[in-house]
Amino acid sequence: MKQVSIPTLKRLPSYYNIISTAIMDYGEKYISSSKIAKELNIDDTQVRKDIAATGYVGKPKVGFDTFELRLHLEQFLGFNELKEAYLIGAGNLGVALSKFEGFRKFGLDITAMFDNNPEKIGKKIKDKQIYCISEFQDMVRKNNVKFVIITVPATSVNDIIYVVEDSQIKAIWNFSPVNLKVSNDIIVLNQDLATSFVTLVHLLNTN
Amino acid sequence: MKQVSIPTLKRLPSYYNIISTAIMDYGEKYISSSKIAKELNIDDTQVRKDIAATGYVGKPKVGFDTFELRLHLEQFLGFNELKEAYLIGAGNLGVALSKFEGFRKFGLDITAMFDNNPEKIGKKIKDKQIYCISEFQDMVRKNNVKFVIITVPATSVNDIIYVVEDSQIKAIWNFSPVNLKVSNDIIVLNQDLATSFVTLVHLLNTN
Repeated sequence: MKQVSIPTLKRLPSYYNIISTAIMDYGEKYISSSKIAKELNIDDTQVRKDIAATGYVGKPKVGFDTFELRLHLEQFLGFNELKEAYLIGAGNLGVALSKFEGFRKFGLDITAMFDNNPEKIGKKIKDKQIYCISEFQDMVRKNNVKFVIITVPATSVNDIIYVVEDSQIKAIWNFSPVNLKVSNDIIVLNQDLATSFVTLVHLLNTN
Repeated sequence: MKQVSIPTLKRLPSYYNIISTAIMDYGEKYISSSKIAKELNIDDTQVRKDIAATGYVGKPKVGFDTFELRLHLEQFLGFNELKEAYLIGAGNLGVALSKFEGFRKFGLDITAMFDNNPEKIGKKIKDKQIYCISEFQDMVRKNNVKFVIITVPATSVNDIIYVVEDSQIKAIWNFSPVNLKVSNDIIVLNQDLATSFVTLVHLLNTN
């Protein structure tokens, strides 16, 4: 994958969504950077720079070929490769995420859930079975799973993090409200929902 | 509220968490910018700049007074003012968010949920009642609620957005996997979970 900056990377899925909508809802063959920019309320120079950074070039005066650019972004962002992930913590948030259909579009496939509650173990959420956390490491190895999503309460993080650290997991997406740190080189993305809310409050108070 | 940049604002809750942990777990009276920086793997100049931007100054060589700075950030970020919010979409994600205890710490209090499913209306999730969406506008007005969290599926967004636009809501926190745009000056924060995942995949592939 070509290296782009994180801010650029974070904008690309929005571009992808806008281009997809332009195709599906309006059948548009071309889309301009200024149209994408307007939808997102950002500068159109930014849009052109971001897309150029992925290695795609539009046609001057005509804009971007929607079908070509959509396919290009799909490949660039890896949406067309299914990435299997496990989820630890079959509570409300875990169940919500495992049912969330928006993920498939981006190549994320949660195939199993893990918990330590005997009443949950063995049950199924749609087609996803809930396994005992004691089976986690074996299953990760057997199925070569690289991603884990953590949705346990803050108080349970310490109980499960050593299980993950000691497995072949490469990346953690952490929804627990603690700033997760791991001792080895697993990549951690802390999804701090409170931070988002703080941003919203600030925007409201300063507008 | 003093105006700070959005990137600064997004880092402040992490600083707050680290300072709280330093107090609660270790009873530390002072904390240095380099200690905070190390926890977050960022530069300590950044930490000092961000905290200075909120109007707080540390003591040279000693660092920040933990109790003072925690209280200062609490006030700056408005954590000590409870902000009432309504939630539309009592599905899995909506229920998960309404039960999420991490929010209270940051002053967010979801007091009611709304849905259009007759089987859900009238039920209670903990102490939060699910109301019919037809009651939304009246309740927003009566209780002077400014925030709404949207957790309906992508296909239902069009059905409820006009209800919100036509209410006295000032800010929307959108969890539906669509890039929400509103016609008036309501502030929208799109919580695009897929974007986070894309970032994680990219970090994994380029490390």
